[in-house]
Amino acid sequence: MAKTLKVGMIGYRFMGKAHSNGWRQAPHFFPLKANVEMHTICGRNKEALEQSAGELGWSHISTQWKEVINNPEIDVVDINTPNDSHAEIAIAAAKAGKHVLCEKPLAMTVEQCQEMVDAAKAAGVVHMICHNYRRIPAIAHAKKMILEGTIGDIYHYRARYAQDWIVDPDFPLVWRLQKGISGSGAHGDINAHIIDLGRYLVGEFEEVCGMMNTFIKQRPLEDTSGKGDGLGGAGGKVMGDVTVDDAALFIGKFTNGAVANLEATRFALGRKNNIVIEINGSKGSLFFDFEDMNRLKWFDNTAASDRQGFTDILVTQPGGDHPFVGQWWPPGHILGYEHTFVHTLADFVNAVIDGTPVQPTFEDGMRNQRVMEAVEESAVSRQWVKV
Amino acid sequence: MAKTLKVGMIGYRFMGKAHSNGWRQAPHFFPLKANVEMHTICGRNKEALEQSAGELGWSHISTQWKEVINNPEIDVVDINTPNDSHAEIAIAAAKAGKHVLCEKPLAMTVEQCQEMVDAAKAAGVVHMICHNYRRIPAIAHAKKMILEGTIGDIYHYRARYAQDWIVDPDFPLVWRLQKGISGSGAHGDINAHIIDLGRYLVGEFEEVCGMMNTFIKQRPLEDTSGKGDGLGGAGGKVMGDVTVDDAALFIGKFTNGAVANLEATRFALGRKNNIVIEINGSKGSLFFDFEDMNRLKWFDNTAASDRQGFTDILVTQPGGDHPFVGQWWPPGHILGYEHTFVHTLADFVNAVIDGTPVQPTFEDGMRNQRVMEAVEESAVSRQWVKV
Amino acid sequence: MAKTLKVGMIGYRFMGKAHSNGWRQAPHFFPLKANVEMHTICGRNKEALEQSAGELGWSHISTQWKEVINNPEIDVVDINTPNDSHAEIAIAAAKAGKHVLCEKPLAMTVEQCQEMVDAAKAAGVVHMICHNYRRIPAIAHAKKMILEGTIGDIYHYRARYAQDWIVDPDFPLVWRLQKGISGSGAHGDINAHIIDLGRYLVGEFEEVCGMMNTFIKQRPLEDTSGKGDGLGGAGGKVMGDVTVDDAALFIGKFTNGAVANLEATRFALGRKNNIVIEINGSKGSLFFDFEDMNRLKWFDNTAASDRQGFTDILVTQPGGDHPFVGQWWPPGHILGYEHTFVHTLADFVNAVIDGTPVQPTFEDGMRNQRVMEAVEESAVSRQWVKV
Amino acid sequence: MAKTLKVGMIGYRFMGKAHSNGWRQAPHFFPLKANVEMHTICGRNKEALEQSAGELGWSHISTQWKEVINNPEIDVVDINTPNDSHAEIAIAAAKAGKHVLCEKPLAMTVEQCQEMVDAAKAAGVVHMICHNYRRIPAIAHAKKMILEGTIGDIYHYRARYAQDWIVDPDFPLVWRLQKGISGSGAHGDINAHIIDLGRYLVGEFEEVCGMMNTFIKQRPLEDTSGKGDGLGGAGGKVMGDVTVDDAALFIGKFTNGAVANLEATRFALGRKNNIVIEINGSKGSLFFDFEDMNRLKWFDNTAASDRQGFTDILVTQPGGDHPFVGQWWPPGHILGYEHTFVHTLADFVNAVIDGTPVQPTFEDGMRNQRVMEAVEESAVSRQWVKV
Repeated sequence: MAKTLKVGMIGYRFMGKAHSNGWRQAPHFFPLKANVEMHTICGRNKEALEQSAGELGWSHISTQWKEVINNPEIDVVDINTPNDSHAEIAIAAAKAGKHVLCEKPLAMTVEQCQEMVDAAKAAGVVHMICHNYRRIPAIAHAKKMILEGTIGDIYHYRARYAQDWIVDPDFPLVWRLQKGISGSGAHGDINAHIIDLGRYLVGEFEEVCGMMNTFIKQRPLEDTSGKGDGLGGAGGKVMGDVTVDDAALFIGKFTNGAVANLEATRFALGRKNNIVIEINGSKGSLFFDFEDMNRLKWFDNTAASDRQGFTDILVTQPGGDHPFVGQWWPPGHILGYEHTFVHTLADFVNAVIDGTPVQPTFEDGMRNQRVMEAVEESAVSRQWVKV
Repeated sequence: MAKTLKVGMIGYRFMGKAHSNGWRQAPHFFPLKANVEMHTICGRNKEALEQSAGELGWSHISTQWKEVINNPEIDVVDINTPNDSHAEIAIAAAKAGKHVLCEKPLAMTVEQCQEMVDAAKAAGVVHMICHNYRRIPAIAHAKKMILEGTIGDIYHYRARYAQDWIVDPDFPLVWRLQKGISGSGAHGDINAHIIDLGRYLVGEFEEVCGMMNTFIKQRPLEDTSGKGDGLGGAGGKVMGDVTVDDAALFIGKFTNGAVANLEATRFALGRKNNIVIEINGSKGSLFFDFEDMNRLKWFDNTAASDRQGFTDILVTQPGGDHPFVGQWWPPGHILGYEHTFVHTLADFVNAVIDGTPVQPTFEDGMRNQRVMEAVEESAVSRQWVKV
Repeated sequence: MAKTLKVGMIGYRFMGKAHSNGWRQAPHFFPLKANVEMHTICGRNKEALEQSAGELGWSHISTQWKEVINNPEIDVVDINTPNDSHAEIAIAAAKAGKHVLCEKPLAMTVEQCQEMVDAAKAAGVVHMICHNYRRIPAIAHAKKMILEGTIGDIYHYRARYAQDWIVDPDFPLVWRLQKGISGSGAHGDINAHIIDLGRYLVGEFEEVCGMMNTFIKQRPLEDTSGKGDGLGGAGGKVMGDVTVDDAALFIGKFTNGAVANLEATRFALGRKNNIVIEINGSKGSLFFDFEDMNRLKWFDNTAASDRQGFTDILVTQPGGDHPFVGQWWPPGHILGYEHTFVHTLADFVNAVIDGTPVQPTFEDGMRNQRVMEAVEESAVSRQWVKV
Repeated sequence: MAKTLKVGMIGYRFMGKAHSNGWRQAPHFFPLKANVEMHTICGRNKEALEQSAGELGWSHISTQWKEVINNPEIDVVDINTPNDSHAEIAIAAAKAGKHVLCEKPLAMTVEQCQEMVDAAKAAGVVHMICHNYRRIPAIAHAKKMILEGTIGDIYHYRARYAQDWIVDPDFPLVWRLQKGISGSGAHGDINAHIIDLGRYLVGEFEEVCGMMNTFIKQRPLEDTSGKGDGLGGAGGKVMGDVTVDDAALFIGKFTNGAVANLEATRFALGRKNNIVIEINGSKGSLFFDFEDMNRLKWFDNTAASDRQGFTDILVTQPGGDHPFVGQWWPPGHILGYEHTFVHTLADFVNAVIDGTPVQPTFEDGMRNQRVMEAVEESAVSRQWVKV
C-alpha cells in the first residue's frame, strides 16, 4: 500500500496557484512513489484563503503558518510566501521534521541560506528550491546532452531574461519595486533563474562584474483605495522612489573557464517572459528560447560539413528520448509553462519517499545567492568580485 | 448553491486521458456555472479500467456503456470510443436525456450524423462535437479577428495537417490502417480537423476535388503475441493490405468564393503533429502553426507601407485581450496541447447549465462529414463533387 | 588565349536588368572558360534602349532583333522578350547558329516548344531555358542531397509561390492580366517556376487536376495618360475584364509515385515573392523558403531519435560544400536574388565552350509546358488530365 | 557631361574584392552624380596583383601605394590594407588632395585616428570609414524609425557579433591571432562593427566595463611550406602563443542613459557571421539578425493590445519605403552581403561630387576607436572606464 504524503502550502498567490496545479496533476501523469494529499493551504486573509482553497483544491485552511508546520499530519511544507519570510518558515519546518520545498530565491542573504541548509541537514529532511525551469524538458535534455559531452568543453554561456511589464512610467510603485520588501528588482526576480540555469548547465561561477540600472526613478504610489493603478490626472499623483533595479547585467567567468554574459530586464517591450540561452562549446552549441519552450536548437560541429546547421529538436519524443514528456501526450503535442512545476513536484515526492537529495537543493539556493550578492556588490564597487 | 454535473465517460485511451484532464482542470481555472463530478468511466476491459479510473480521477467504473447512459445519476455523457460506435451511443444517450459530448469524427456517415442531430434535438439536450482545436487561443483569436473584418474578404484557405508515425514500412497494420474498423486513414483522423477549422474560420465548402493515396500498400500484421511490432526477420512476417489512405489532399471552393487547399498526411518525416494554416483576405493574412500554438501571425495591409510585415502575436495576453488565456498565467507563459480540452469542456459545462447551443454542435459534425464524404467520392470518381 | 563570347540580348526590362547583371558579374566571380563581351542590347524603343545600354553595360544597341541574330559577331542570343515572341526569335537564332538562352516560359504552346527544341538540336547549338531558381545554392544543394539518397524515396512535393501585388481591386488591367498578351496569369508567371523545380527535384509529372481562379473579375483600364494607375474617382473609371487567373492550384502525381500539391497566387497579402517548398521522403524531409533563400531545412530520420529535428543549413559554406557559394564570400555572408542569374550564366558560358548540354534545356522547357497545359485543360474539363 | 571619378584602391584581398564589386556595381544601380573609373589597384605582390586586376576589373596596377596617391589622375583613394598602415596612407592621400575611403578600424590608436581626421579636414577632402553595415537596408530603416521616434527613448542596446572559424585548436596562428600585427582579435575585427552600430543607432558611449578572453592560448605556427594548416601529427607541431582575444564582452552606458551589452566572439559554433541586435525603447523594440539581413523585427507598444507582437518587416519595399532597395529588384527579392558596399560607395561618390560630409566620417572612426580602447583598458584594469 502506497504511503500518502500530506502537504501544507504556505502562500497562495501566483506561485501558490502554480504549485497547487502541480500537486493536483503530478499523481495523474507520473508514477509517484506516494499518494499526495493536498491537506492545508495557509495565508493571512481568511476570506481569500477560503476561496483559494476551493479553487486550488485544498482540504483545510490555516491563517497561521506555525500551525501548519506543527501539524503532525503534515509531511511536506511548500513555501510560496514573499522572500523575506522563507528562511524563518523553512528552518522551523525542517526543525519540525517536515520535508521542505521552497520557492526561489531561497532567502534574502547568503547567511540566511546557510542557516536553512544547516537546519535541513540537521533535521535530515529532504529539501528543494523550486527552480522549476530546470525541468523544462528542453532544458533537462540540454543538461543530458552536455553531460554526454555532446557540445564538448563550454566556452560561452549567454542568457537573458526579459520582461516588459513596468515600462509604462505610470505603472505604480508596487511592493516588487521597493527594496525594503522585495530585496531587489529584476535581479532577484528573474536574473536568479538564469543564474541557476548557468550553474545547472555550465558550472560554478568564479567571478562577476555587473551593473544594476533603474530607468524610471519615481513612480506613482499605489492606490490603496482599491482602484489599482488609476491614480488619475496630472497633479493628482503622489510619487515615490523606485528603490530596486529595472535591469541587471553582468559578465563573468565560470571556474571551468567559460565566459558568462547575463542580463535581466523588465524594460524590453515585446518580451513578455522571455528567456533566451545560448551555450557554445568546443563541439557544438545549444540555443533555447522559453517562449518556444518545447524546442532546443543544437549545432553539431561533428556533422558532415555540408549538412551542418542548428537542428530544431522538438522535445516531445516519448519513450525516454526526451525527459518527462513520455508521461504526457504523443509526439508534437506541446507542453506549457505549468508542466515544469508538475515535473518538479513529481521528482520531489519520489525523493521524499526514497530519502535521497533532489536537485536543486537548498545548497544550490545558497550558491545562487552567493552569485546574486557578488553581482550586487560589484554594481556598487564597480569592480570584479569573486563569488 | 451551484448545481453539480455528473459525468460518465465512455472510452479511456488517448482521448479519454485528454478529456479526463479537461474535466479535472476546468473547475480549477474557469468560473464554471456548475460543479463537475467525474462519476463513471466506462470501457470493456475491467482490469485496465480500474487502473485508468485511479490514474485519471474517476469514482466509478462500468464495463457496459448502456449502464452509464441509463444511470439516473449521470447528467453528461462524454464519448471517446472508436468511431463506429459514436452514433449508437450518442443517440441512446440523447434519448436517455443526457447532454452529450462526442469525439470527432461524429460518425461513419452523413446519415448517422443526421440521426444523431435529430436525436439530440428531439431530446432537447446540449450536444457538442469535440473539435478541441477551435479553442486553441490563437485559433479563437483568429476567429475573432476575422469576425471583426480585420482581414477583409477571404480569398485563400490553405491548411495542412502532417504527421510521420507510419513512414516506416515495418510499422504494423494497426486497426487505424484497416478501413473496416477506422473508416479512413489520414482523411478521417486529421483532415477532419482542418476541414472543421476551415468551416469555423472561413465558411461552408461548396465543392471539392481530391485524391487519397496509400504509399505503403502492405504491412506486417500486428504481433498479437504481445511483443508489439517485433515480428522479426525476413520471411517471418505475415503481411496484410493497408486499406486506408496514408495521405488525402483536396482543392475546393467555399460558398463565399474563397479557394481551399487542404492536405493531410502521415508521411511527412519531421512533422509530428503539425497543423499549418494560412488565410489570405482582402485586407490582410493570418498564419498559424500548431507546433508553435501560442502564436498567431498577422499581416495587416492597412498599416503604413514601410512598417508592414507579419506580426507575431504571442496569444498570451490576459484581461480579455486573448481568449481563454486570462484564466491561466501571466503574459508570455505559454499553454500546451491539453489546454484546448479544458477550454472546450468549460464552455460545454456552461452551455449545459444555460441550456444554450455550444459550437461545434452535432450539426457541425454532420456538415464536416459531408465535406469528408464529398472528398472521398471525388477521389473515386476523379471529378469535382458538390458538398 | 581564352575565347570571347559576344552576347546579344533581346529585351531589356526586369529580366533584361537581371540578365545584364549576370553577364557583368559572372566573369568577376567564376572561372569562366571564355571571356564575355556584352555586345548588343535590342529593343523597340530607341531612346529607352540608349539609356538602358549605358545603365546595364552594353556596347551597342539595335531596334531589330533580326539584326542581332544575323550579326556574325554575335555568338550568343539571350531572349528576355514577352512570351509570345520567344519561339520565333529562338528558332531564328538557332538557325543562324547562335547559342540561345531563353527566359521562361519557353513559349506559348507545347508545339512551339517542340519546334524550338527541334531547331536547336538541328543547329547543334547550346540551348537553355532560364529557370534561374534551379541555381539558388540551397536548391542546388537540395538536388545534390536528393541524388545522394539523403531523403530516400520521395512521397510528397508541396510547393507554393505566392505574391500580393494585385490584391487591390483598383490595380489596373495591365498586360499581364490580359490573356491575349500574357497567355495566363499566376499560372504561367509563377506556377511555371515551381513546376520546373518539381521536375528538377522530384521527377516527371504523370497526371494533374487543377483549378484556376480569378477573384477580381474587372479592373480599371490602364491610364495611358502617363499617370499610372491614378484613374481617379468613382464613375471616372473605365473597367475591363480580367482574362487570366489570379490563382492556380493543382494536385497531381509524379511517375515515381510521389504526390504533388502546387499553388500559385497573386492574392496572398504579405507574401511578396514567396516560394515555399517541402519534400518528404522515406528517410527525411527538405524545406525551403525563398524569402530565406540562403537556408535549407533538412530533417534526417536516420539521426539518433532524441536528436532529430529540422536542421537549418545556412548554405554559405565554401570549399565545395555548398554549390556556387565558394566563389563569393566567406561563410555566413548571404547571397541575394540576382546571384541566381550569375550562376545560370556562368554554367551556360562554360557549356557553350564545352559544347555540352546544360540543364534546364529547351526540352525541359517543353516538358514544363506540357504540365502547364495539362493543368489548364484540367481546370476547364474539371477532371484529371495525363501529362 | 558628368564628371568621372578615378579610383585607386590599395589592398586587394577580401575587402578589396568586396570594394571592387561595389565600384563596379554602384553605377549600374544608383543614379550617381559622377562616372566611376576603376583606375588602379595597388598591392605588393605584382603577380597576384595582375591576376586580381583582371578578376576585379581594374585598369592599372601599382606595387607602390605612394605612386597611387601621387598620381594626379586619381581622385579617390580606397584603403583596404592591414590596419597598421591605414593612418600613414590615409594622411598622405589627404595631403595629396585625394578623397579617402578607409576600411575599419580606422587606425591602431585614437591618436592616429585624430591625425587622420585633422589631415582630412585640413585638406578639405571627403573622408569616410567603411562601416558598410550602416547601409544594410534594415539597419538604415531602423535608423529612420528611431529618428522618427517610433521606439521612443532607448533603454537597451544589446548586440552580439559571433563567428566560429577558430574553434578548432589546430587552426594555425595566422596573423589575425598575433597582436603585433592585428592589434586585437575579435574586438577590433567584429566588436568594432557593433560599437559603430551602437553609436549610429543609439548615441555616444559614456562608460564601459569589459573583459577579453583567449580560450586557446597556443596554436600551431602556420605552415609556410604552402600546405596550409596541415602541420601533421603529434610532436610535429611547433606551437606559438595566441596574443589576441578570442572573445571580447562589455557592458556600458550611453550618454542618453541607455544601457549597453556587447559581445564579440570567434568561438560560437554555428554562428558564421552572425550579428544580432536588439534595441528596447519606451514605445517599442527593434530586432535585427544579420543572417536574415533583409528583415527588421519591430514591436510597437502603441498598437492595440490584442494585436501586438514583433512585426517581421521584409525590408524590400521600393518607392522610398525602404532605403536603397528601390534601386534593385521588386518586393521580396532579397539582397545579400555585398550590396552594403554598393550602397556605401554610391553615397560616397555623391558626397565627393557635392563636397559634403558623408557618415560615417573619420571622426566616427575616431570615436569608435575611443570606445574600443576604453574597453581594452577596462579589461586590464578590471574597472569601469569613461569613454
